[in-house]
Amino acid sequence: MSGGAGFPLKTVAIVGLGLIGGSLAKAIKKNTPCRVLGLDKSETVLEQALACGAIDKACAPKELAQADLVFLCLYPQQAVDFVTEHLTCFRKGGLVTDVAGIKGMICQMLPPLAQRGGFTFIASHPMAGREKNGFSASDADLFCGASYLLVPCGAPQAAVQTLSAFALRLGFAGVRLTTAEEHDRMIAFTSQLPHALACAYVLSPQCPNHKGFSAGSYRDVSRVARINETLWSELFLDNRDALIAELDCLMGNLQDIRNAIQAGDREELTRLLRRGRQIKEDLGE
Amino acid sequence: MSGGAGFPLKTVAIVGLGLIGGSLAKAIKKNTPCRVLGLDKSETVLEQALACGAIDKACAPKELAQADLVFLCLYPQQAVDFVTEHLTCFRKGGLVTDVAGIKGMICQMLPPLAQRGGFTFIASHPMAGREKNGFSASDADLFCGASYLLVPCGAPQAAVQTLSAFALRLGFAGVRLTTAEEHDRMIAFTSQLPHALACAYVLSPQCPNHKGFSAGSYRDVSRVARINETLWSELFLDNRDALIAELDCLMGNLQDIRNAIQAGDREELTRLLRRGRQIKEDLGE
Repeated sequence: MSGGAGFPLKTVAIVGLGLIGGSLAKAIKKNTPCRVLGLDKSETVLEQALACGAIDKACAPKELAQADLVFLCLYPQQAVDFVTEHLTCFRKGGLVTDVAGIKGMICQMLPPLAQRGGFTFIASHPMAGREKNGFSASDADLFCGASYLLVPCGAPQAAVQTLSAFALRLGFAGVRLTTAEEHDRMIAFTSQLPHALACAYVLSPQCPNHKGFSAGSYRDVSRVARINETLWSELFLDNRDALIAELDCLMGNLQDIRNAIQAGDREELTRLLRRGRQIKEDLGE
Repeated sequence: MSGGAGFPLKTVAIVGLGLIGGSLAKAIKKNTPCRVLGLDKSETVLEQALACGAIDKACAPKELAQADLVFLCLYPQQAVDFVTEHLTCFRKGGLVTDVAGIKGMICQMLPPLAQRGGFTFIASHPMAGREKNGFSASDADLFCGASYLLVPCGAPQAAVQTLSAFALRLGFAGVRLTTAEEHDRMIAFTSQLPHALACAYVLSPQCPNHKGFSAGSYRDVSRVARINETLWSELFLDNRDALIAELDCLMGNLQDIRNAIQAGDREELTRLLRRGRQIKEDLGE
């Protein structure tokens, strides 16, 4: 996939070499001819990233001006703080994006900063993760087959096309353009609710004794309980209304099932479970 | 694995050739020298099972007397009804077991029937499944790596050993001896709750639009919503108290997370999520 003097991006910088930033760096080196600059607060991580070829150079914030494209791979508020503090470091006319799991706050704060800094900002969210954190868990193939969500935030269409094409080069299966509002409403259901649920589930007094009594359904529901609680608390609080709506909807549906069981109402219970099956079947899953 | 004149079981009968019964028949033919007899209400299924070699012979209830071991692969109440109706058909001194996902009702009803019929009954539950039903979804390797739960119900130790050894031959990773009460309490958490949850989860108004916005956590929580609602309604109602306790526990934990989000209480929210992570870490998962 490498080579090509006509490749539109020469240098890409990754700010924050955790699971996602590290995986992006590796995926870029694997799939494109770009030079990759890395920033991280940890010297050890920078040395590891250099040693394994995930980045070409550890750089200081002022060197971000060399980058055609910057990925902010930080917690949401950290990303805003970083851009605010280093606003003059970004290349004029360059492209900056993020990877945060919520978009409302990001799309409110970053476009005005980008305008002041003279660069283009597009919000994005790679829909991939792992149950482990940090650079040591990063993987060049993390994004293979995943969806790349993109909120243009008023950026020129050419910039949106450049970032979309770049994402497909990294292995993403598709790019989905969306709005901050739609993103946060959907993510509350597809991602945040399962994480809240996994934590609530494993708090059952039976959980520590499950071994020998469990199979795939325990494994699948509990998997993401191995959570980064600092990051996810921030994501949950940044998406409060949408997540509360999903939690209330789920608790209401669980209560309906509970009431049918309590009442011994087989007909109603069967009807509720059948609705679940039909939704999955209608989706072809 | 086949061969051996000293193999303790010559003929095994499977009553009900659905997903579990069909998979047991195939696993027995694959891994043991036993002759397999099959009973099913569907002539088509019997023909398919004969054609693919999953069974050696389709048999009538009275021919069950030929079987050293009978697996009742029916819904729980059906299993009790079948034994009641055909009590004199089973071999005197033979071994009979079931595969039902609840054990309280089974272990109350079947041992007295077994005593009247002059055979030994051991309750069992192979911890394996699929999102598809019926003989066409059956698989000789369905049980590989799974746990085989066994409630002796007062059977002689030699019979328990015979059935345990047989299960290991079929690919089960281990046999766990338990009581009906412990089984039903644990299964409410490890299996029934995830199934109720999956159905409640996909009832969200966002679900039909999830594609492009979802990844592993949606897939895992929603997987078992493709449910056999007739079977699972019976299983839920047969395990009412234990399942309601788990549902109430889960809804209480979800409510705690919801309240922390509503209050914007980051410290409490982080604490709740950290407990989930620690439970998984303590389990080494």
